[in-house]
Amino acid sequence: MVRGDGRKPDEIRKISVEINYIKWAEGSCLISLGDTRVICTASILNSVPPFAREKGMGWIFAEYSMLPRSVDTRTSRTQSGRSYELQRIIGRALRSVCDLTLLGERTVAIDCDVIQADGSTRCASIIGGYISLFIALYKLWEDGIFVKFPIRRMVSAVSCGIVKGEKMVDLTYAEDSEAECDITVVSTGRGEIIEVQGGVENGGFMTREVFDELVDMGIRASRYVFSVEKEVLSQFLKELKFPD
Amino acid sequence: MVRGDGRKPDEIRKISVEINYIKWAEGSCLISLGDTRVICTASILNSVPPFAREKGMGWIFAEYSMLPRSVDTRTSRTQSGRSYELQRIIGRALRSVCDLTLLGERTVAIDCDVIQADGSTRCASIIGGYISLFIALYKLWEDGIFVKFPIRRMVSAVSCGIVKGEKMVDLTYAEDSEAECDITVVSTGRGEIIEVQGGVENGGFMTREVFDELVDMGIRASRYVFSVEKEVLSQFLKELKFPD
Amino acid sequence: MVRGDGRKPDEIRKISVEINYIKWAEGSCLISLGDTRVICTASILNSVPPFAREKGMGWIFAEYSMLPRSVDTRTSRTQSGRSYELQRIIGRALRSVCDLTLLGERTVAIDCDVIQADGSTRCASIIGGYISLFIALYKLWEDGIFVKFPIRRMVSAVSCGIVKGEKMVDLTYAEDSEAECDITVVSTGRGEIIEVQGGVENGGFMTREVFDELVDMGIRASRYVFSVEKEVLSQFLKELKFPD
Amino acid sequence: MVRGDGRKPDEIRKISVEINYIKWAEGSCLISLGDTRVICTASILNSVPPFAREKGMGWIFAEYSMLPRSVDTRTSRTQSGRSYELQRIIGRALRSVCDLTLLGERTVAIDCDVIQADGSTRCASIIGGYISLFIALYKLWEDGIFVKFPIRRMVSAVSCGIVKGEKMVDLTYAEDSEAECDITVVSTGRGEIIEVQGGVENGGFMTREVFDELVDMGIRASRYVFSVEKEVLSQFLKELKFPD
Amino acid sequence: MVRGDGRKPDEIRKISVEINYIKWAEGSCLISLGDTRVICTASILNSVPPFAREKGMGWIFAEYSMLPRSVDTRTSRTQSGRSYELQRIIGRALRSVCDLTLLGERTVAIDCDVIQADGSTRCASIIGGYISLFIALYKLWEDGIFVKFPIRRMVSAVSCGIVKGEKMVDLTYAEDSEAECDITVVSTGRGEIIEVQGGVENGGFMTREVFDELVDMGIRASRYVFSVEKEVLSQFLKELKFPD
Amino acid sequence: MVRGDGRKPDEIRKISVEINYIKWAEGSCLISLGDTRVICTASILNSVPPFAREKGMGWIFAEYSMLPRSVDTRTSRTQSGRSYELQRIIGRALRSVCDLTLLGERTVAIDCDVIQADGSTRCASIIGGYISLFIALYKLWEDGIFVKFPIRRMVSAVSCGIVKGEKMVDLTYAEDSEAECDITVVSTGRGEIIEVQGGVENGGFMTREVFDELVDMGIRASRYVFSVEKEVLSQFLKELKFPD
Repeated sequence: MVRGDGRKPDEIRKISVEINYIKWAEGSCLISLGDTRVICTASILNSVPPFAREKGMGWIFAEYSMLPRSVDTRTSRTQSGRSYELQRIIGRALRSVCDLTLLGERTVAIDCDVIQADGSTRCASIIGGYISLFIALYKLWEDGIFVKFPIRRMVSAVSCGIVKGEKMVDLTYAEDSEAECDITVVSTGRGEIIEVQGGVENGGFMTREVFDELVDMGIRASRYVFSVEKEVLSQFLKELKFPD
Repeated sequence: MVRGDGRKPDEIRKISVEINYIKWAEGSCLISLGDTRVICTASILNSVPPFAREKGMGWIFAEYSMLPRSVDTRTSRTQSGRSYELQRIIGRALRSVCDLTLLGERTVAIDCDVIQADGSTRCASIIGGYISLFIALYKLWEDGIFVKFPIRRMVSAVSCGIVKGEKMVDLTYAEDSEAECDITVVSTGRGEIIEVQGGVENGGFMTREVFDELVDMGIRASRYVFSVEKEVLSQFLKELKFPD
Repeated sequence: MVRGDGRKPDEIRKISVEINYIKWAEGSCLISLGDTRVICTASILNSVPPFAREKGMGWIFAEYSMLPRSVDTRTSRTQSGRSYELQRIIGRALRSVCDLTLLGERTVAIDCDVIQADGSTRCASIIGGYISLFIALYKLWEDGIFVKFPIRRMVSAVSCGIVKGEKMVDLTYAEDSEAECDITVVSTGRGEIIEVQGGVENGGFMTREVFDELVDMGIRASRYVFSVEKEVLSQFLKELKFPD
Repeated sequence: MVRGDGRKPDEIRKISVEINYIKWAEGSCLISLGDTRVICTASILNSVPPFAREKGMGWIFAEYSMLPRSVDTRTSRTQSGRSYELQRIIGRALRSVCDLTLLGERTVAIDCDVIQADGSTRCASIIGGYISLFIALYKLWEDGIFVKFPIRRMVSAVSCGIVKGEKMVDLTYAEDSEAECDITVVSTGRGEIIEVQGGVENGGFMTREVFDELVDMGIRASRYVFSVEKEVLSQFLKELKFPD
Repeated sequence: MVRGDGRKPDEIRKISVEINYIKWAEGSCLISLGDTRVICTASILNSVPPFAREKGMGWIFAEYSMLPRSVDTRTSRTQSGRSYELQRIIGRALRSVCDLTLLGERTVAIDCDVIQADGSTRCASIIGGYISLFIALYKLWEDGIFVKFPIRRMVSAVSCGIVKGEKMVDLTYAEDSEAECDITVVSTGRGEIIEVQGGVENGGFMTREVFDELVDMGIRASRYVFSVEKEVLSQFLKELKFPD
Repeated sequence: MVRGDGRKPDEIRKISVEINYIKWAEGSCLISLGDTRVICTASILNSVPPFAREKGMGWIFAEYSMLPRSVDTRTSRTQSGRSYELQRIIGRALRSVCDLTLLGERTVAIDCDVIQADGSTRCASIIGGYISLFIALYKLWEDGIFVKFPIRRMVSAVSCGIVKGEKMVDLTYAEDSEAECDITVVSTGRGEIIEVQGGVENGGFMTREVFDELVDMGIRASRYVFSVEKEVLSQFLKELKFPD
């Protein structure tokens, strides 16, 4: 079976990343996942929320937003319930691959602004947010701020679903609109699971076996994500052992 | 291994349900899952959002809120990002077990108000929301509104996690605070998966195998949830074949 | 004349109180006044608003909210002008029976969440709020925090009105809807007046004499409120002289 | 006993009213009650809220606001709980003296903007709001819109309190700050009570007898208010029997 | 050509100013520019925003608001985009004529509340705001707070436009509604320009020459504004050399 | 004198425009003015605000927003007073070059999202907004919707200021921070003025002559802007006489 854009079911769209896209940010990139494009920035803030201060650790949070015309029908700029849900998922994913106790009294704010949406925007945000976070923390590492580099793993996020009975990864907006199931698999370079989120849609149900296959597809497809991350971040790896 | 409250790892806390708890609501209950207590109401509204009207179907949405002192430290009444995320999960779970095209131009509003929180509030909200939804729709069914009863399945939601290296279901607040992983498994009476949501916490990672075991534990533990739902709703089942 | 629920005009509906209803709160109860049910919690906060700090006293404030389906037609969760008015009345009533200078740098937050409304919710909130406040302060008293117990009086709140030409106390929702006058009498165990609030409705007017009779009915009917408060709080009275 | 400004205890400050103060409004005035000054406008809107439409009647509502520097310490422009409470009292007072069924599908918006506050702003707002309402409705009356003039009574509002043990009416800001009790008596030209609102402050209590005397003082002092209203509105009374 | 109110094209409406109009404010006035009436207050606050603190200077900001019925059709109290734009213009004008480094750690809040609008409300607000600011700072000057009086210039603001092909100053609401161009000229007593803001409206365009003539008209007409300011503020000038 | 980036005083930074940058929008571009980069989209909405409907015309409005890290210090996503002011200027500029009566019952929403700010963001937004508006309306023109193309003129916007005593155009962020004056000149392809907005900053004043020279510089420098617009839009000009 061949998809609308000629892809195979287990094939992720081409990812391209332009790093240091925003000159003011400590870390930034423009990530393109097919026609989905997200500007991700990482900002270092020299304070932490109260609950983190009590635990003597740093913090990472994400904000996710869509430009009004990143979608087919112009939307309002006020934050939706969906954007709250997505920015929480992004924040959890990035915190999980960091050792927050190494950050010191610092917060990293990850801003993910979708400028054009064509499905899987949360996945693009996690990957682009990770790259921006890496660059921002690497600068601090170069400045000798950390005793140990705080990033412990690479992170990937892949959407997997069933469309017209066919299992596939990295759904476009058109595919997502008619998917029976749609899950996001966030995993590490070692194949560990960070988060799985998703389920049935449009009246479908999902057997245990189908769910398993979708998770497996997501983990397998992550290899391409990791290869992109390694290539993009390779310039920072001369003196730093890359996490996996 | 025995847990703080004497439970076995795969044991859900006692669920008790007081139906028709709020006299004004079309459907309502007070559900207790151990010390977690949630008031769930289902309100029938005679209109639908614009996108549903275009598709000729009804709609179901949920609102989730915590009383300020349902938790250890008094919280503000303003809606948090967390409550947005949870009410979206609850709404998706309940929509997935209904045939929305059978509802007509009706919206069912599910209000889940946590009056005392001790972990797994989203699970209690899904179960209590389901029972309230069932009662509200059953009244319309009795009035001959529907050609076919719109609920297609039973629904269960169980939290599963790893605490101090031990896999267990239905985490309390104390257990959740030190869990390495925490996932919620929403499934049907036939063992189908509706949604899985969750992942690692507090610096942990989760192998593919561990994730599988947690999902399996969640599905197995659902049997108790379904037995409670059947008992509570049995009075409505004389003339209605129960969904599974 | 006998009312819809069989009560005499000067008869308050049965009040039942379940104390320590919320395990996390310093003081709490579920109060039922007929079908009106309110969860009241008292939370001790270790700071005071700026104006209180300047005067070297503590503070007490109330928040009043109704669950969306506590009423006949589902309402929004956003705070209404009515809820602002009511929570100010509740706050004033509870502050007036306390010696705020004895509280130290503490604020007590009283949360009144109406889970089912059937008239006189502000009265139930004042009574339930008082009981929760008493319990919370008693715990501090037991811990030896206060040189003197800060509660100076018992407090009662009774609604009084004229329905179909008949004067009566403790109006239900149905009675309130067709009342010509409706006032709330907040008074102390010694028969002192704390606040009277209310007036004509639905096109009526009220002579000076009628107003007097309504206030008197409210004060007389308070006896039942005080007897309930004494019974509920009796366990705390062994070593403490009860205020009146 | 003579008060700071030379008044006798039962004496209201001089009221002066400049009608048609705002040229755009259907009815308007600047009312001065001593140093308390409020701009009151009445705006005729050609629609009613949904609940009024169902009952086939018109509606009247009030908004109350203070300029930031109408008080000693500059305040924010965001509406406070206090302003919500006051505008509800003003709205109830004005609705009670009108026959809303005579208004047709019209809403009258009463805007009370305090430009300088020196105590009793709610009383000045009710009196000034009444005068503006009268003028606005009179214009419609002249246009032959009403079969009968909708205003049924004159309305007065007087604050009464106890300061340093002395009962007095029309408290200034300085007097109010140290009052033991403070009540507002809203009454009609026939001596009927529309609303009584108020109670103890600053640690005081109030016997039933004291409360009665304060209400009586308020009603007696209203005579001056009615004489002012009659003088101000006399030009509209040639062809209209004045309400009382 | 003679205008609707008998004015010549280059004639500003009569300005009258009642200073110390609000007894609580450090500086205040009611300014009337024809039928446009604005209450302006200046409040001294003993703190500055963070960015000013870093630069060791004081701050001045303005808030602009219209009473709901200051205009023909009742408006909402929520701040509009227009009011944000205007209060920024007012704030910039007043900051530009002050030496902020002389203010010390003080903010002056200028509140401009339009009670009746008939065109050129921003001009009236700048002039009235200036007078209030002057009075407030003069009081501090008398108290010996400043080493040098912080106000460096007089400030004027005049609107200029083209109506039915005729250039004119100080447009009324009726004139503004059909103007082809409308600019505001803010200038000093020395004829320097502080800000020019404005342009074409209602489908017009403006040649470079016409624009120049409008700016010139605005500057020339300012003479009347300065004469009013001098007269109003003359009582403060005995010991102080007036800015120009 | 040569500026930090090697430019001459009267030289605008290189403008580059990528049209159709957002695939969903009816018109869109990414405009770069040196390091200032703005995404501009034009969305056709099939309704108009009430006041436009009454006048039988269409409408155009703009929204202006900055990504949190488009600037040196991360900012909040909530709209500031500054963004309200800027989006009003952008909206007025674009409305002035259109014949709104030709639009029919349509609104064009112009969204200007600054992704990287380095001064003159309002100018880049007006130019990019104009190009997006042109493209969106051209599509409707091709569809035969309009009897006449609604755009009447080209529009330019140039910032002009004085930095260290030197007059210059198109200020960068660094130049703007120390400018004594800063004005924005919005003009048409025929040299007509649409809007001038701006004035002194940082303690400066501006003579009438200096102001004139700045306006002249802005108009002269606009030639480059128009040449860019013509080049970018040339593909749409085969069958359409270009406005000037």
